[in-house]
Amino acid sequence: MLTDVIMGIRPLDYEAMRQARERLDSLTKPLGSLGRLEEIAERVAGITGNPLPPVPRKTAILLAADHGVVVEGVSAYPQEVTLQMLANFAGGGAGMNVLCRHAGIELWVVDIGVAADTRGMTGVSNRKVACGTANMAAGPAMSRETALQALETGVSLAREAVETGAGLLITGEMGIGNTTPASALAAFYTGITPEEAVGSGSGINQERRQNKIRAVAQALEINKPDRNDPVDVVAKIGGLEIAGMAGIMLAGAAGRVPVLVDGFISTAAALVAAHLCPAVKDYLLGTHVSQEPAHRVMLEFLGLAPMLVMEMRLGEGTGAALAAPVVDAALKVLHEMATFGEAGVSKALDN
Amino acid sequence: MLTDVIMGIRPLDYEAMRQARERLDSLTKPLGSLGRLEEIAERVAGITGNPLPPVPRKTAILLAADHGVVVEGVSAYPQEVTLQMLANFAGGGAGMNVLCRHAGIELWVVDIGVAADTRGMTGVSNRKVACGTANMAAGPAMSRETALQALETGVSLAREAVETGAGLLITGEMGIGNTTPASALAAFYTGITPEEAVGSGSGINQERRQNKIRAVAQALEINKPDRNDPVDVVAKIGGLEIAGMAGIMLAGAAGRVPVLVDGFISTAAALVAAHLCPAVKDYLLGTHVSQEPAHRVMLEFLGLAPMLVMEMRLGEGTGAALAAPVVDAALKVLHEMATFGEAGVSKALDN
Repeated sequence: MLTDVIMGIRPLDYEAMRQARERLDSLTKPLGSLGRLEEIAERVAGITGNPLPPVPRKTAILLAADHGVVVEGVSAYPQEVTLQMLANFAGGGAGMNVLCRHAGIELWVVDIGVAADTRGMTGVSNRKVACGTANMAAGPAMSRETALQALETGVSLAREAVETGAGLLITGEMGIGNTTPASALAAFYTGITPEEAVGSGSGINQERRQNKIRAVAQALEINKPDRNDPVDVVAKIGGLEIAGMAGIMLAGAAGRVPVLVDGFISTAAALVAAHLCPAVKDYLLGTHVSQEPAHRVMLEFLGLAPMLVMEMRLGEGTGAALAAPVVDAALKVLHEMATFGEAGVSKALDN
Repeated sequence: MLTDVIMGIRPLDYEAMRQARERLDSLTKPLGSLGRLEEIAERVAGITGNPLPPVPRKTAILLAADHGVVVEGVSAYPQEVTLQMLANFAGGGAGMNVLCRHAGIELWVVDIGVAADTRGMTGVSNRKVACGTANMAAGPAMSRETALQALETGVSLAREAVETGAGLLITGEMGIGNTTPASALAAFYTGITPEEAVGSGSGINQERRQNKIRAVAQALEINKPDRNDPVDVVAKIGGLEIAGMAGIMLAGAAGRVPVLVDGFISTAAALVAAHLCPAVKDYLLGTHVSQEPAHRVMLEFLGLAPMLVMEMRLGEGTGAALAAPVVDAALKVLHEMATFGEAGVSKALDN
């Protein structure tokens, strides 16, 4: 299934992009003066294969999972907060709920690997692959089979969303401890040190930060992930929601819809997805740069430019949700602005 | 009138800010993890004096004016484009129209100094102070009296907007040639050289850029604005729409509503406003950093942090309009997120 998805990711539609660019250049503004707004419109044309793509229906898929590495004392929050926050998402009271309502985004809340029973929780889809990961500082976070299942769960979810009308996907996550595997993936793939890869996460003290750096270093040392095998990497030093988000990105790309990458954890998933299939990068849009110091390094590694600089570090998909209206705005520019001809405005002397 | 407005600008309401901060810290997220979204909510509480400010009605005031300095060959567009674009704004086809509709912003299009007759143009308010400025490279752009009239026109417009229900103001502008006075103001106030202050504006070739640098240097040299008299500065090296925007900012602050500062020209107006009354800065919110290289310098000088990094350079107010939904989102976070108590979520161990 994963191979099928990867084989299904095609290059951008350059003819649709050329037509979109031609229209952008005919609109009543100096050439290129709407900057990245124009680039986004052009890219969405290339992704969808439509030179005049409609403003999309938007679905955010929030994957929740737990992390065995919390036993190393890496988080300021107890593990049960993952479950408590699921209830908060279901009740509509979390930051992600507020920002999704604000931006007209449908929010799917999914248990892909919470270490507690969530069956019967209204508003939470049960797609549990495992009850959390094992402690990656002592061995692999999960087996290869489990990682593949998590990836494929993400693929299924993205396909369902696209089949039911989503034209844009947003990745979100919840999982106490998940900045630790994200830091390990950042260090592994970008070559920064564990010290550089570890930030303050949800807000930890110096002792926990030292624990976290040690856990990341140990996970890399003990597991020795295979650089040529991204499934091995995400199995050994990743997480269930991280693998799932990589699956969402791949299936979104195969389904020709743009995927908004959120913050530190989502971008770690993008590293995995991009190593499984480099062409996926063309289908990803960067949204914000978080307060985690390694986030900018990862974005640059992937060639993703953030739209927002808001010093956020909440995760959940909140940065991507906040940026979604910018994508809508880019498409409305393409649709609604008058051309020089229509408006009777003189063109520049220099062009 | 101007003195009255300036005397009417009070400090932020720190008690309202304290209450807003208290609520933000009780919401289900790690402390401060929504970064600048939280800062914006807190600031709007301080500006409005309301610890739980409602999502505001938003009005953008777009001031159009012409610039005598265009005779120096500083722009890629002929002067008649100012008038043509006014018709485009009135017809709803410009970038600013699209982004205002997108963000639910009411747009007022105002002739404050266009060098053509706009009477009878539907959708354009006639508040003309003069038919454009004189060439600042050969003498003062306008008289002190004219500058005061332009400032007061901005004040009147902002007061009208606030009196009719606007809870947030956005400054916008249109005026062929207006990056030239904006560059002169940037150089004068921040101490950068004319060469550093001059960017490519609407997209000019090297010859025009050299003309523009020379015009800025000459304007500074010939006019010798009085550093202790911001009205003298904006009269000699400013523009009618720039003075008007400074008036909007001052009256917005006096009326306790936040004012979103757009790009290079709006920020030049903010320099004037902040020199007339430093307290106005607390009422201004930075929105984006434009492609004009001097823009970042000006924002830093004023202590304004951009929300968006979109490489835009269209002006009109487009960057501020694109950022307006971020302000709405910040206030919705304050209103709609659940507290730890309400949601039954455990707090961090470290706080």
